[in-house]
Amino acid sequence: MQVHAHDIAAAHAAIARHVQRTPTIAAPRLSEQLGCTLSLKLENLQATGSFKDRGSCLKLQRLAQQPDPPKGVAAASAGNHAQGVAYHARRLGLPALIVMPLTTPFSKVERTEALGAEVVLHGESVAESTVHAKGLAASRGFAFVHPYDDPVVVAGQGTAAIELLEDRPSVDTIVVPVGGGGLCAGIAVWAKHAKPTVRILGVQIAACAPMLATVKGRPMPPLHTHTIADGIAVKTPGVVTAEILAKLADDILLVDEVDVENAVQVLAAQQKVIAEGAGAAGLAAVIRHADAFRGRDVAVLVCGGNIDRRLLATVLLRGLKRDGKVAKLRIAINDVPGVLARVTQMIGAAGADIIDIEHQRLFTGLAPRQAELDVVMETRGTAHVEQILASLRTAGFPAQSL
Amino acid sequence: MQVHAHDIAAAHAAIARHVQRTPTIAAPRLSEQLGCTLSLKLENLQATGSFKDRGSCLKLQRLAQQPDPPKGVAAASAGNHAQGVAYHARRLGLPALIVMPLTTPFSKVERTEALGAEVVLHGESVAESTVHAKGLAASRGFAFVHPYDDPVVVAGQGTAAIELLEDRPSVDTIVVPVGGGGLCAGIAVWAKHAKPTVRILGVQIAACAPMLATVKGRPMPPLHTHTIADGIAVKTPGVVTAEILAKLADDILLVDEVDVENAVQVLAAQQKVIAEGAGAAGLAAVIRHADAFRGRDVAVLVCGGNIDRRLLATVLLRGLKRDGKVAKLRIAINDVPGVLARVTQMIGAAGADIIDIEHQRLFTGLAPRQAELDVVMETRGTAHVEQILASLRTAGFPAQSL
Repeated sequence: MQVHAHDIAAAHAAIARHVQRTPTIAAPRLSEQLGCTLSLKLENLQATGSFKDRGSCLKLQRLAQQPDPPKGVAAASAGNHAQGVAYHARRLGLPALIVMPLTTPFSKVERTEALGAEVVLHGESVAESTVHAKGLAASRGFAFVHPYDDPVVVAGQGTAAIELLEDRPSVDTIVVPVGGGGLCAGIAVWAKHAKPTVRILGVQIAACAPMLATVKGRPMPPLHTHTIADGIAVKTPGVVTAEILAKLADDILLVDEVDVENAVQVLAAQQKVIAEGAGAAGLAAVIRHADAFRGRDVAVLVCGGNIDRRLLATVLLRGLKRDGKVAKLRIAINDVPGVLARVTQMIGAAGADIIDIEHQRLFTGLAPRQAELDVVMETRGTAHVEQILASLRTAGFPAQSL
Repeated sequence: MQVHAHDIAAAHAAIARHVQRTPTIAAPRLSEQLGCTLSLKLENLQATGSFKDRGSCLKLQRLAQQPDPPKGVAAASAGNHAQGVAYHARRLGLPALIVMPLTTPFSKVERTEALGAEVVLHGESVAESTVHAKGLAASRGFAFVHPYDDPVVVAGQGTAAIELLEDRPSVDTIVVPVGGGGLCAGIAVWAKHAKPTVRILGVQIAACAPMLATVKGRPMPPLHTHTIADGIAVKTPGVVTAEILAKLADDILLVDEVDVENAVQVLAAQQKVIAEGAGAAGLAAVIRHADAFRGRDVAVLVCGGNIDRRLLATVLLRGLKRDGKVAKLRIAINDVPGVLARVTQMIGAAGADIIDIEHQRLFTGLAPRQAELDVVMETRGTAHVEQILASLRTAGFPAQSL
């Protein structure tokens, strides 16, 4: 192994003043629901919204302190690593060049530029961006900063474990999302040193779990990076990190898209915490594999919070729909004056709040003098929707929930 | 004054094991933007999502320890006080009866019932609910728990200041949203005792600021409670709290609806923290009155996070619209085959992402062979929208941004 506990202690001494000491909070409602003592370490509260601040801070500090420091730093990333590098480069007065795939959303380009970095859009994937970034770095005399496959970066990420065990010495299980594996590897090195009995559980998204295959020596499954947990959809596990995780991780758990979406929702609704998909993957694993955690003292790394506002809004609204708090009814009516008033009056009297209504005559499959009403409404939940459907049908309006 | 520092110290000793010790976090990006050192104390992380846990915990504990304890507790509230009382009543094994106004949203009724309380819907306002709750309490031998006008409740809320000054001894300004005034009064009592130089600034929503009028001895303005900051839209300031704030608050600042909406947005987007309107009012005041805070060491109480998911989603989407990240263009076209393809191709080529499209022929005011396209799209911002509009006009399509 290329990273040891003393490296992480040294990293902590070096960066503690330049990154946030993030809080570890209790999650009382979730603990009750899940039957375990659940704590959340909020790495989403770092200045750039993810744990990447730690590794970037240490790596750039080390580069700047070299006898012959580089003229700048370069990185390839569509996300949090870009921001971590840009932020600490600006702080240290180093020029930063970030290569991002051509398909990177505006908001991520903009946020990285706002931190003072030069952004170059190149390549169809992070792998292609990486080749380009290394080429540009070589030609400019910049140092290329790898997002995870670097012992210095891993040591930086591991500093989160020092804080976590200070704040929650009783913890017996630490759950960490795994993309390239830098955070989980760093945490494993420190935690297994400071408290050898602690269990380290990595979490990958089922669509893209190459670290699990690598660590277990299994054939590599097909990998898909189009996921809500794109921050951990990393196709190439690190060599440095895989060696550490093979030795120190007790297991790597898998979660699905729907688990992650649900965990983003739950963190927002019940815990008032905004996590990106990857940041919620740890909680997703605890909910999905609840039996493995019952009675345990569990800490979950909420590793990042950089979720697009539109995606977060969509997740919140889909959660309302899933809980039956927003429903869409399709109601067949006779297309004559007064019927719309009667239907809406019935719904209002039942205590539901209509928020959208659409009136279809053309594409209905009904008789010519009939029409379809699609009514979107806020309700008390599934039972309330059933009650409204029943009363509409009793009044002679065929109705269904969409 | 009916509350003293030793009351708050005693309260802290009594409740510390039963409420969350909430973190005080640094807000590095906001600090940079606002030119001050900004910290946020996250009372939204309490078990029921607001600081009300503190006062309820202390009050109910004291009631339960009386030689002749009540048979249960009653309260009137449409919001956070209801949940605080219900939560701690359940913990202490006391029956809880909560009277809520008839117009209370389902979600709040449901959450209070889920905490084991009996909910009675009665009255058009909290004032009417209060009368009913007091009557029911008297007939059942229950104790009525006032949300703020009670020295014990104020002492409980004040415990937040003990933690805050432990975590941020350097703070020179504490900003606290004011409804009934319990949190601000409690904090003022402790903070002025522990650090007499600290400034205590209350915040009220301009539509409903009776505490400001009371404390300054001004005539009461008309009060409106239909606001995004409904948690602090309290029409009747406490007598206990007004006396304390008149003596100890350095000022009470006012914020508008739009300030609060913006603060909810900023907390979510930049700080990954979910606050309800009232919970964001403190940050709203710091942004609105930024000159008064520049260079200061400021702590803001994020007093609650119980925002409806639909409202939060709406605030996020309105923020995107305001930032020009989502725009709606109205484009006049000749209603012939191929034109729609040409317009959407132009928008796509300009790098904007179409998310909704509507085609109007009937209500347009255009010539009969013309139609209006309403195109909703994601863009890079206002300049990008202008560029797309210009290219559409150059190609002969009259277009405007809605």
